[in-house]
Amino acid sequence: MAQEPVVSFSPWDIDVEAEAGRTVLEVADGSDARIEALCGGNGLCGTCAVQIESGAENLSSVTDEEQSVLTEAQLDDGYRLGCRAVVEGDVSVHVPASSRSEGEIVMTEGVEVDFDLDPSVRLYRLELAAPTLEDNTADRKRLFDALQEQYGIEVTSADRLATTELPSRIRAEETEGTLRCTAVVFGTEELLSVVPGTAQSAYGLAVDIGTTTVAVYLLDVRSGTVESVSSTLNPQRRHGGDIISRVQHSQKPGGREELQSEIVDTINESIDEVTTEAGIEPDEIFEAVFVGNTAMHHLFLGIDASAVAASPYVPAMQASETVKARELNVEINDSGYLSWLPIIGGWVGPDFVADLLAAGILDRTETVVCIDIGTNGEIAVYDGETAWTASAPAGPALEGAEISHGMRAKPGAIEAVTLDPDTWEPTLEVIDDAEPVGICGSGIVDVVAQLFLVGAIDRRGRFVTPEDGRGRVRETDDGDREFVLVEATEANGDSAIVVSQEDVRDIQNAKAAIQTGTNILLSEAGIDDVDRLVMAGGFGNYLDPESAKLLGMYPQVGADQVEFLGNAAGYGAIYALLEEAAKAEAERIVEEVDYVELAAWDGFHDEFMEAMYLPHRDLDRYPDVKARLEEVGVDRSL
Amino acid sequence: MAQEPVVSFSPWDIDVEAEAGRTVLEVADGSDARIEALCGGNGLCGTCAVQIESGAENLSSVTDEEQSVLTEAQLDDGYRLGCRAVVEGDVSVHVPASSRSEGEIVMTEGVEVDFDLDPSVRLYRLELAAPTLEDNTADRKRLFDALQEQYGIEVTSADRLATTELPSRIRAEETEGTLRCTAVVFGTEELLSVVPGTAQSAYGLAVDIGTTTVAVYLLDVRSGTVESVSSTLNPQRRHGGDIISRVQHSQKPGGREELQSEIVDTINESIDEVTTEAGIEPDEIFEAVFVGNTAMHHLFLGIDASAVAASPYVPAMQASETVKARELNVEINDSGYLSWLPIIGGWVGPDFVADLLAAGILDRTETVVCIDIGTNGEIAVYDGETAWTASAPAGPALEGAEISHGMRAKPGAIEAVTLDPDTWEPTLEVIDDAEPVGICGSGIVDVVAQLFLVGAIDRRGRFVTPEDGRGRVRETDDGDREFVLVEATEANGDSAIVVSQEDVRDIQNAKAAIQTGTNILLSEAGIDDVDRLVMAGGFGNYLDPESAKLLGMYPQVGADQVEFLGNAAGYGAIYALLEEAAKAEAERIVEEVDYVELAAWDGFHDEFMEAMYLPHRDLDRYPDVKARLEEVGVDRSL
Repeated sequence: MAQEPVVSFSPWDIDVEAEAGRTVLEVADGSDARIEALCGGNGLCGTCAVQIESGAENLSSVTDEEQSVLTEAQLDDGYRLGCRAVVEGDVSVHVPASSRSEGEIVMTEGVEVDFDLDPSVRLYRLELAAPTLEDNTADRKRLFDALQEQYGIEVTSADRLATTELPSRIRAEETEGTLRCTAVVFGTEELLSVVPGTAQSAYGLAVDIGTTTVAVYLLDVRSGTVESVSSTLNPQRRHGGDIISRVQHSQKPGGREELQSEIVDTINESIDEVTTEAGIEPDEIFEAVFVGNTAMHHLFLGIDASAVAASPYVPAMQASETVKARELNVEINDSGYLSWLPIIGGWVGPDFVADLLAAGILDRTETVVCIDIGTNGEIAVYDGETAWTASAPAGPALEGAEISHGMRAKPGAIEAVTLDPDTWEPTLEVIDDAEPVGICGSGIVDVVAQLFLVGAIDRRGRFVTPEDGRGRVRETDDGDREFVLVEATEANGDSAIVVSQEDVRDIQNAKAAIQTGTNILLSEAGIDDVDRLVMAGGFGNYLDPESAKLLGMYPQVGADQVEFLGNAAGYGAIYALLEEAAKAEAERIVEEVDYVELAAWDGFHDEFMEAMYLPHRDLDRYPDVKARLEEVGVDRSL
Repeated sequence: MAQEPVVSFSPWDIDVEAEAGRTVLEVADGSDARIEALCGGNGLCGTCAVQIESGAENLSSVTDEEQSVLTEAQLDDGYRLGCRAVVEGDVSVHVPASSRSEGEIVMTEGVEVDFDLDPSVRLYRLELAAPTLEDNTADRKRLFDALQEQYGIEVTSADRLATTELPSRIRAEETEGTLRCTAVVFGTEELLSVVPGTAQSAYGLAVDIGTTTVAVYLLDVRSGTVESVSSTLNPQRRHGGDIISRVQHSQKPGGREELQSEIVDTINESIDEVTTEAGIEPDEIFEAVFVGNTAMHHLFLGIDASAVAASPYVPAMQASETVKARELNVEINDSGYLSWLPIIGGWVGPDFVADLLAAGILDRTETVVCIDIGTNGEIAVYDGETAWTASAPAGPALEGAEISHGMRAKPGAIEAVTLDPDTWEPTLEVIDDAEPVGICGSGIVDVVAQLFLVGAIDRRGRFVTPEDGRGRVRETDDGDREFVLVEATEANGDSAIVVSQEDVRDIQNAKAAIQTGTNILLSEAGIDDVDRLVMAGGFGNYLDPESAKLLGMYPQVGADQVEFLGNAAGYGAIYALLEEAAKAEAERIVEEVDYVELAAWDGFHDEFMEAMYLPHRDLDRYPDVKARLEEVGVDRSL
């Protein structure tokens, strides 16, 4: 008895035995080789196109449907429709990303997010009977009926512009009484556009509007791949690096329009850049998913942000927002959508919702603290069932801003510091091994933690006297004390790099804000032991968790319990772009996560004052820190 | 035992006995005095404001709620809230139109349409608790929650622009922790706008875009009254008086945009005119309902009309369309909507749907023929349960166009004609009793009917010889015959007014189109006896039904069976503006009325050729006409 033929599927390296007369699609069905087949294997949609790597002669010959649906280039490259090629002998088949029914994206920085590739924007290839006097149903109804019959989806509305061009678009490719076109549908409900013939492409954008940086990712929504990325500075910075200055500017006459058009112009330049790099037209982009903090959300959408910028911190809206790109002059397809993730409350905005989405917070089974450090630090605590969140006004110190010798993380910035426990002699890590010119955020956190560890500052953050200062603590002309990290030399222009008492105070304030927020949420949740600390946001990647723990800023977890998500907000946006269900998940996060207004929390002020101590007024609550301090052996009594 | 006090309600002239302690609203409840009370009688909405005509001293004193909700002018004019004024003795109350829960509009030309005053645009006065740190729900959610609590409606979305200004709008009027504002809601689902304080006004437009004339009605949607009307010529006429020329122009580069902006500009000028006349701002208009034929619909919306202008006459879309006014630069409130009634099929467009809506076609219990005469005549036939409709290409002759001495209905136009049965001496009715200069549509139909009645033309429409022509039938230089209606005199510039053989032929063609359409629909419906002939459209008002019957154009009904709706399309639009359910009724009409494509109907050509005879090849099918002809006694054999 003859052996059954075997079909090998890459990229999975799966071999499946094929019963006689089965198509490639039928052979794959039930195995782990997942091939998309939107039209149900009827030779219409082309989503099951596969490339034959070897054994093409062991397949049935190319059918008329394949000639019609596949491009000439595809036919030349050995592509077949999985639903039409019947297996007659051994064959090796490569299933390209665009034909797989599941996707997986490997993020930069090693974070993996598994998801189903199922974007809101979908393409449906259609065959319509050409109208006659006996059958002169309106074009749009004809198209909707075909979507229902050929794909089983009920599209009920159409973008105005999809209708204006419909008659010529559906009639552009006619053969023998059959019209061929491709419908671009948003969310299975709205017809966005119709393209003559069998269009292949649909793209989307994930946009992360940071206070400082705007990142635009261009993705092929059919394959889930990142095609190109653009990162530019937020042009609104000229009205102030901080959010409050910008909100104030927005309240001047014409200010709101100015801020809005600045950010839109910048995004349009980025769109130009990413589409040029990928060799596509902006017209092929049908959706852009946006994340950013509450102020960026309001300023982008042209919403009055005055009420959220001052107590009692009320945003104008909370729900997800979906607006036509043309409404805001964002230059993607005229019928395309801009989708903003929702706001949880106050300053806990769409960017943190995206963080929690990327963290899969509600699907975890352990107790979690998730922190995104910024001028406003956002914190979430999850007890395995319920989550609480808050925004903590950390200020800019943790990012190295408003620090005596603070600077951004660029060559010459001191990014890591250790002090010799005896001599207090510093060992510096400088970006690019350059001559040190200043201290960036991770460096200043390290310094303060080390100053505390060796005993150069006490638990109130006060410097020891110059007499006890190992020659590194000195008094300024104003009578304040400071720590000399790098002595003045000719190389640095005779200007020492120091850490002032004021700098220490700023870091204390910042860490106390995060710490107080975390502790209040842990207390709301009734959690004593944290299983996992999830650091979301690029900045959290750079801070040394051990230093942050020493200061009391992070909860008492071991190094193996810390998870770094990197640019989680961006990943959350990509996730929402590529899997429609992620948008519903974002809504669920808003629904289920309790927003806690720290300033209104009973005892907030006392808790904050206690957190101003290093690591906290009650050292016993920080046993890991206590143990390390005891190793050094300095007196830590208050 | 003391008598109960009595409350008299005008304008109904209803007296109701009042139990002790009841409010005016409670007294009216259950009687035929219908007072609106959107907030359920809680002193919030002001919709139950009534004017006290006498007996004000017999009411409880004015409450704080009334001071807050009513304007100073209203209080001065003796207005009270029906829900707050408690009856203590006899009182006479006038309920203004804006406070009545039912409306009725008396149309011009004597047509009455009864309806419930329940427009898609509704105002809801709200009281919101001012946000605090403990209660800092987003503004929009706060507003939605209040709509739910105070009015029981679930508003789920907001126009983008309603949100952008929300924070300042809701905070503009605050007293002691309470914010007062008015929400403008569309269709109980979408927040259109928020106005500080207790706004009173909301307006709407009904727009009838005719091929020749554009009519714009401004209505107060809270009272149902027409505030002002504008009628202008359709500016697209410069590309041709007929539709086909315009569709051809729309296919030239930039032509579609040009036609669209011409009509939008004209409508914006009309809006300026009607708002100035009524003393309101365009910003107070939140909806405009549009009707027009299929081509006017497509050209206004910027839709490619090429496919509907040629066989097989396929419109691009069919369903009702609702688009933001700002999308098409129509200058009403930025958040307002333009609502087009739907298309039944081909040339049976929104204007005829409006006709059928005004005619209440589906609610009738008799057999009905409804005709709207124009260049395309629309016809519906209803058998008491089901309706059929078709469009008949009548051409412009019935309107007096392309007739030798045809002219529009203006001073000097012959509008009615009778011929002496013996001498064929005409008796003319001329508009404004002026010297006759030409013949308008109703005149030409009269002339041809009279020529046939007296025997000047035979059943094929051919003139008798000049010998038999009573001196009025003469031969032209080309050998054609014509009928002299008015001899050349000095007064009319030595130019006779004649009816040519070609003119008679044009009228035969036109009447045959209407007649064939009607007969085919009657045959589809299996109807022999027509109970009622409904003439929709201004033009049908002017035609003499007896003349139209003589020609075979109208079915065999008596004068008392004919109903004239006048400008039914305009009334249908007004109806849809003032009662939301009318829009659903329009959808039901499209759903339930069968569209018949005459050109595809088996036997259409034969039927048309038979209808070219006067009144029809089969005279026995027209017994009324046969009887009248027999009175005259001319030989009518073929």
